[in-house]
Parts: sequence; C-alpha cells; structure tokens
Amino acid sequence: MSVQIVEPRAAEPAPTPQFPLDQWYVAGFSWELKDKPIGRTFLNKPIVLFRTLEGDFCALENRCCHRALPLSDGTVEEGGIRCGYHGLLFDGTGRCIDIPGQTKIPGKAIVPAYHIREQDQILWIWFGSSSDSEPSFEPPQYDVHSSGRYLFDGDVYHYDAPWQLVHDNLMDLSHLGYVHLRTIGGNAKVHMNAEMKVEAGDEWVRVVRHMPGSTPPPTYTAAFPFKGEVDRWQEIEFHVNHLRIWSGAADAGTCDLNDPNRGGFHMKGFHGVTPETETTCHYFWSVATNPVRDPEETKQKVIEQSKMTFDEDKVVIESQYKNMLRFGDRPMIDIHVDVGPNRARKIVEKLKAHS
Amino acid sequence: MSVQIVEPRAAEPAPTPQFPLDQWYVAGFSWELKDKPIGRTFLNKPIVLFRTLEGDFCALENRCCHRALPLSDGTVEEGGIRCGYHGLLFDGTGRCIDIPGQTKIPGKAIVPAYHIREQDQILWIWFGSSSDSEPSFEPPQYDVHSSGRYLFDGDVYHYDAPWQLVHDNLMDLSHLGYVHLRTIGGNAKVHMNAEMKVEAGDEWVRVVRHMPGSTPPPTYTAAFPFKGEVDRWQEIEFHVNHLRIWSGAADAGTCDLNDPNRGGFHMKGFHGVTPETETTCHYFWSVATNPVRDPEETKQKVIEQSKMTFDEDKVVIESQYKNMLRFGDRPMIDIHVDVGPNRARKIVEKLKAHS
Amino acid sequence: MSVQIVEPRAAEPAPTPQFPLDQWYVAGFSWELKDKPIGRTFLNKPIVLFRTLEGDFCALENRCCHRALPLSDGTVEEGGIRCGYHGLLFDGTGRCIDIPGQTKIPGKAIVPAYHIREQDQILWIWFGSSSDSEPSFEPPQYDVHSSGRYLFDGDVYHYDAPWQLVHDNLMDLSHLGYVHLRTIGGNAKVHMNAEMKVEAGDEWVRVVRHMPGSTPPPTYTAAFPFKGEVDRWQEIEFHVNHLRIWSGAADAGTCDLNDPNRGGFHMKGFHGVTPETETTCHYFWSVATNPVRDPEETKQKVIEQSKMTFDEDKVVIESQYKNMLRFGDRPMIDIHVDVGPNRARKIVEKLKAHS
Repeated sequence: MSVQIVEPRAAEPAPTPQFPLDQWYVAGFSWELKDKPIGRTFLNKPIVLFRTLEGDFCALENRCCHRALPLSDGTVEEGGIRCGYHGLLFDGTGRCIDIPGQTKIPGKAIVPAYHIREQDQILWIWFGSSSDSEPSFEPPQYDVHSSGRYLFDGDVYHYDAPWQLVHDNLMDLSHLGYVHLRTIGGNAKVHMNAEMKVEAGDEWVRVVRHMPGSTPPPTYTAAFPFKGEVDRWQEIEFHVNHLRIWSGAADAGTCDLNDPNRGGFHMKGFHGVTPETETTCHYFWSVATNPVRDPEETKQKVIEQSKMTFDEDKVVIESQYKNMLRFGDRPMIDIHVDVGPNRARKIVEKLKAHS
Repeated sequence: MSVQIVEPRAAEPAPTPQFPLDQWYVAGFSWELKDKPIGRTFLNKPIVLFRTLEGDFCALENRCCHRALPLSDGTVEEGGIRCGYHGLLFDGTGRCIDIPGQTKIPGKAIVPAYHIREQDQILWIWFGSSSDSEPSFEPPQYDVHSSGRYLFDGDVYHYDAPWQLVHDNLMDLSHLGYVHLRTIGGNAKVHMNAEMKVEAGDEWVRVVRHMPGSTPPPTYTAAFPFKGEVDRWQEIEFHVNHLRIWSGAADAGTCDLNDPNRGGFHMKGFHGVTPETETTCHYFWSVATNPVRDPEETKQKVIEQSKMTFDEDKVVIESQYKNMLRFGDRPMIDIHVDVGPNRARKIVEKLKAHS
Repeated sequence: MSVQIVEPRAAEPAPTPQFPLDQWYVAGFSWELKDKPIGRTFLNKPIVLFRTLEGDFCALENRCCHRALPLSDGTVEEGGIRCGYHGLLFDGTGRCIDIPGQTKIPGKAIVPAYHIREQDQILWIWFGSSSDSEPSFEPPQYDVHSSGRYLFDGDVYHYDAPWQLVHDNLMDLSHLGYVHLRTIGGNAKVHMNAEMKVEAGDEWVRVVRHMPGSTPPPTYTAAFPFKGEVDRWQEIEFHVNHLRIWSGAADAGTCDLNDPNRGGFHMKGFHGVTPETETTCHYFWSVATNPVRDPEETKQKVIEQSKMTFDEDKVVIESQYKNMLRFGDRPMIDIHVDVGPNRARKIVEKLKAHS
C-alpha cells in the first residue's frame, strides 16, 4: 500500500469501452434508498448510492480516499455520507467536508461523483466516455409508474451472467411455453407459432406477437375473470438500458389487438438491465397491472407470479452461461425466434463502437 | 457470443490426451437413469445421459446447439430429449428432429453423440482418440451384478481429487488400519505385516493379501456369525477404468485362501473411477455380499458400513490432494505397500502414450 | 505425481522474503494445544503444531513425506505424531521413527522441523532467512500472562486481509468512535482530538494518547464502578510480531496519567499478528484486566466485549481489503492519525529488506 496524496480523477485511466458509454443506466428504484446507503457496482465501477437528509439522490465512487473502506459501510448524516472507519464526511459532490480531529482538509480529499437522476421512481446513473463527460440528454420517462392508472411493484435481481443474455431472454418470449408453464406460459406450440412482427430503429427494436384464440395461462386466470379463450398479445420494446414489455389478453373476439387503448388484462413490465461486470449484471424489474377487482390482492398475486417467472428465467440463464463457460467460444445456430434478440445485439455493438 | 451456423464435429479440435483414450469408462449405473436426464462431465466433456421412453440409453454432448443450455435441464419425451429453453428436440443420435414453430430443420442442428453400452447394470461410455473412432472392443462384464448369487447396492461419489489418487487408495489396503477403524479396519499392524503378492499384466495389476488368524473388524462381525478369529483375504484387481476388490473372511482354519470357491463372508466391490477433469473425478461403487441370514437387513448393514468406509476415504484423499496443491510439485518417498499402486500408475501412463 | 526419494530440505528453494525473516512469530497459545494436533499456515508454510505426550511443543512441516497427507490429520502418540493414512510415525525433530510393516526406515524419511518456544503461554515459531538458520535471540516475554496480577483470556481469529491492515487498525485507535460505539468507543470527537504522542525506535513504535475528562464507554462502566467522568489513556506499542495495548481509565482527577503504577480500570491487550499468506493472516489476542469486584464475572464481561470489538474490526478490515482489491493499486491520502501506522510500516519494510 503506497500512501501519497493524489488527484483521484487524474489517477483513473480511460477505460476500454466494454459497454456502451455516454448512456444512462438503471441504478435502482427510488424506494430502495431510505436512510442507509447502498453499494453497487455498475460497468466495473463500485458506486455508493445514497439519499441526503434533504432527499437528494447522490452517487459517489464507493471508496473513501483515506483508507479505501467502502463508503457504503458508512452512515448518511447531515451534509453527506460519513466513512465508517475514521469518520471522514463527504458531500454529494464527493468533496470531503470534515476530517475529525483535523482542521485543514486537503484539496485532494475528494472522491469522484457520478450524475444521477430520479425519473418516475427509477434512478438513472450516467456513464460517460470520459470522466468529465456531462449528460447530453435526459433519462427516459416511464409514466406507467406515475400515471396512477396502474398498481405496481418490483424487485432487484443479481445475475451471474452477462447482461446480453438477459436481453436475449426478454426479447424472445417463445421460451414461455417451456420455461414458465406454472405462470405465464400457456401452450408451447401456440407461442412458437404465433405471428411475430419485428421492427427496428437506430437505437430500438420492437417485437409484437399476437396469439388470438388461445388458452389463458395460470397467472392470467388468477388475476382476471376471463370467460374462456382469449386474444393474447406481447409487445416488447428494446432500448440499450431497459426493455418495456406490454403483455395481456382480452376475452376472445372482444377487442382489436392493434388498438392502443384496448381493454382486458394488462401487465406492463419495466426491465432495467445494467452490466455489473462483463460476466454479471443487475436486473431491475417492475410489473404494473390494472386490477378489475380486489386491487391490492390482485396486484400482489401478479407480483408474486412475476417473481416466480423471473426466478425461472434466472435459473435458465445462469445455467446457460455456466455451460457457455464450460464449452468456450463455440458458435451457435439460429432459429426463427432469434430475429429480435439479434437486432438488439447489433444495437449494443454499434453503441459500443460509438462510445 | 458469435452466432453462425456450423458443423459441430468440425468445430471440435482434437483434444490433447490427458487420459487414456479408445477406452470405455463408467458413466453411471442403470438404476440411476429413470425418467430424468443426468448431466455429468467425463474427461472434460460435458455429457447428458438419458433413457428414451423405449428404454434405450443415450449419451449426447450436454449443450443445445441453439443457445447452449445444458440438455440435462430439459425433458425426456417421445423421440428423444427436448431442450428446456426453446424446445428443440434431439433424438438419441444427436439429430434435431423438431424446432417448435419452424418447419425446416437445418442440417447443422445436431449435437455430438457418444457410444454408450449397458452391461450388467453398469453404463459404459466410449472416449475415442478421434471424434469418429468406433469402439474396437466391448465393455467388460461384471457378473457379480447378474449371477443372482449376491445382494448388492451402490452409490456415486464426486471427488475433488484426481482419479489416480483414488486408484492409489484402492490398490493399497494397508490404510485400513488407520483410516477405517470403525468399519473394515481391524488391527493396523496385522494389515501392514500381511503377506502381499503383486502380479501384473499389460493392462492389469493384481494384489493379493492374506491375513490368517486375525480379529474380524466391526463390519464383518455385524454381517456374519464368526466364531472367533478369522482367516481374512483381500484380492484387488486393477483395470484402467475400474477395480474389482474381493475381500472376506472365514472362521480361522476352515478354508483354503487360494480356493476360488471358498466359503465364509464375502464382499465384492466394483469401483468405477472416471476422470471428470484433470483434478476431479467420479467414483461409482457397488458392494455385493452373500448373507447367510436376514439377507436384506444384512445387505443394508454392509452397504451402510461401506458408505461410511468410502466417506472416510473421500475425506483423506481430498485432504491429501489439497495438501499436494499447497506444496506444489514435491517428490514423495515410497514404502513397501506402494508396489501395487505404482504398477497401476505405469499402466495408465502407457495407455495415455498409446492413445 | 512423480515418486522418488529425495532430501526434503534440499528440495525447498530459498523463498523470496515477502515478510521479515529471522524473526519469531506467534503460532498460537499454549492452551490451544491439548491432545490433538493443529494445522496452520504461517508465511506461506503449512505447519503442524502438536504437544508430545511428555508435554513438549513441536512444529513440523504439515506434510507426510510418503503421500503428502497433512500430518495434522493424524494422531499424537508415544514418540511423536502418526500419519492418518499409512501410519508413518515422526518424532518432534521430523525424523520418521516407524513405518508399519517395514523394518528399514530410509534416511530420507524426514519432514522439516521448525523451532518453537513457549513463553508466558504464547507459542513462538522461528522463520529464518535460510532453512538452517538458528534463532539468534529469544522470543519476547509477556509477564501480564504470568505475574498473577491480571485475569485474562483470548482467542484466535483468521483474517481475509494482509497482516499490515491489522497493524494499521491497532496502531490508530481513533477509529474507536466510529467502529466500536457499542463497546470501547465513547465520543468520536474526543478520540479524534485527543493529544497524541508518537515515539519510535529501530524496531518499535509507541503511540500514547490521553483523553482527560471524557465519558467512560460501555465496556468500562460495565466492568468498573466509575463515579462519573474519567481520565482515559491508550498506550500502544508496536513490534514486528505483536502489539501491546494498555488502555484504561481512572476517575477524573484521581491519578497521574504518566505514573506507570496508576490505579483505575486496566485492559492489557496482547495482539499477535502473523501472516498466513500475502493476503491473509492470523490474529492471536488476549485481554487481561484487574477486576475490583466479582473477578471471574468481570473478566468474562471484559472478554465478551473485547470479542465484540475485535469482531467489528474484522468486518471493517476485511471490507476494506475487498475494496482495495476491487480498486487495484490506487494511492491513498493521509490524515493526522496515520503517523503511528506509517512508522510501523517503515519498520516492516526495513526488516524485510534486511532478511
């Protein structure tokens, strides 16, 4: 351990972009940050997230510049976050504003700060291509959380798998019939044979699937009083930092599957996927629904079944990745359902190249 | 993850032989394979074992050629094994015979298959020196399992130690007096001073030890009504893929220890040792006995005590290997009991060189 | 595994000194060694410690020279320690004195032995700069354990952190106000603002801090009938292989903090810190106190609170080290309390260079 005084920013070499930079990534949900700080690593950078006593969200490098303790082991106090070892206090910009027992605070006593924004109860953190790059646009809005038309809840999962395997999974819902029979699955053949439409822009991909006249799966019948067969839809929208999945169903023949204001049972999923390292990631999800009766109870049922579903995905994806490691760099063959996921991969590659 | 269509066999580079090739290795016992597939790695190759609805045993590379999920996470269905992610179905030869939602099945949708044989309830898998090498001989017979003269049972252990350390242990039963005092041990000095005969052929080693006039150990007296002292024997036969150990005892002076049809209490052990990797292995054992009273109860007692014995071996061998790793490549000194194990090591070296 | 007969000492290459050599290090406390051997690694060398039936302390390389099983898996018997695999018996000098079943004992059947000394219930082991270097001085005395003036107890902790981070922690007690509020903490500002005196010699550092008129912390009031405010002191003495920390307090104004025979409540800590590897260490501590009432009960209370305190340190130091690994070789800034720890680091560097 060499001990000398340095400028933290200067000491940090420019990282090789393993991930798209100059982007907002999901760092958490507002409701996670109460009086305690949270330590999380994003894009290989350990970060401490906290909320000041005044309610402002802050993100600093998770390392006290004195003896390297994670600041997330410390406490939130008036003025900022205090290190849990020798008590140095840092404000939301990373400046040290108190060294107990010492009047003079060296100018170098500073930790790097990150841009963080709250938007619709989602926390977004900016990773720039250089350490002083300022956000050039605002994080996305997500009014499902704010419109009051839905009840929702969510959770945070940690994946021992690279983030793009989670994209693949979410972009291709044909796996529902094999992986999620207990919840949102339904008949496998119906899923695989569903009419599928893929559209893509520069930075988004959209996959729409319609399954008219199909049997509603367990989660659907538990949450909604369907009369029999249903017309079912899935609309998946990929962005580099999150996906939006709108799925649902209405009694067969009672609605136009292209009508944006259609009725029936809705599940609106927010899926923030943020790399932790090249081989691990965070998965921030919320699911919103429109209960027609017993709202709180129905919401809880939908959330519980969503958890079951995402737990099943986690098992599959982590098993898949372990096997990829076992077999090394081996080519894969494509099938018809891979069009959407492959478009998403191209966008990630392009954004990485541009960072 | 690069995604392109390739010939699986062509993509597999010739492996450096770390293990003797063109050999049958034990893959499991027939009774292990019911309606679910089993994933196991042999000689660094992850394999899925399954039994078709028709009862045929199959062994495929444990990786779906679509998105690399282990096929052992899938289900056995009519026609073969179905992947648990997107539902591709493979028959016992590794050919994909169904891609849900897609009529055309690409010729490249195939996973490598391995030769597997059932013989006397033991499953043998062939590892050739090239990916298309055909078995040039049949796996060994083991009529102890089939003759009806013995009751037996067995189990499968996983070792965090190289396979040859298990050979060493089984080839030299002088450790019984130190490691297995609770079960088959007996007096240490008697074991160490027993008359020992070692014979060897090109691909086998045979160690025979006689301990006349010795005290029967706990497992023996629990299973057989000995009158007092016993004449005890151990006959160990090493083959590259398994060992056979015939041990037992008769009341002192009542039998000829060289008579192959001698009476008394018998334990016949089958010990399949198959490398998983260079540093880990599978250990498939069965123990058969000839109860003279309460057959099922006696057999269970013998099996229970055998488990205890093999658990003790596992503790010792894994501790030994951990220590070898701590100390690195350090020479060892030999003592008199090492003749048998060292002959077995020479056979393995020779067979590796010839692969 | 190559098997040949060699001279163990000759086979051992001279180690690069990562640690000060030609030093005594703490190996344990006398009361730990009863009838069973203990395996511990010091300075990257796996060692077995045992006490012969005659009561002598011995330290050997923890590896049977036959098949490398740790000797700590064996048993202490008349004459020495017997390996738990094939029964080789080694005396306290490492010489093999019995190979069961074999009359001739090869001269090479020997394991390296280490110099070990018991002094005041502390076991010291010598690590020389060459394998045949003899101790050139005696291990330190610690009469707190022997004078009869104190009651004491202690424990052994394993740290997933380099030994010098434990030095840093013990040399700078200003962290008490942040880490140990439940036990020996007291007011953080008082600690940080305490008058501090640092003295150093060639191989020692001494930090003295006085906190007159301060509030006694929980451990102090639980153990001693203070009337109100106290005059508190901490005297820390660093040596390369252990630290001595004398802390305590007397009712404010009732004693001279420079009088070596002052009264009040005393805690005398012995802190043996011995590297296990470059990144892990052992921490052997004892705490002695001078109860004025209910001696055994008071001692137990002090020991219990000391355990809590040292548990808190372990959490902080291991978290700190994990974070240092995350961030790699990054400089740190110093504050006023770092004078003592930094002097200690210089001594370790100097002693390493001289080894």
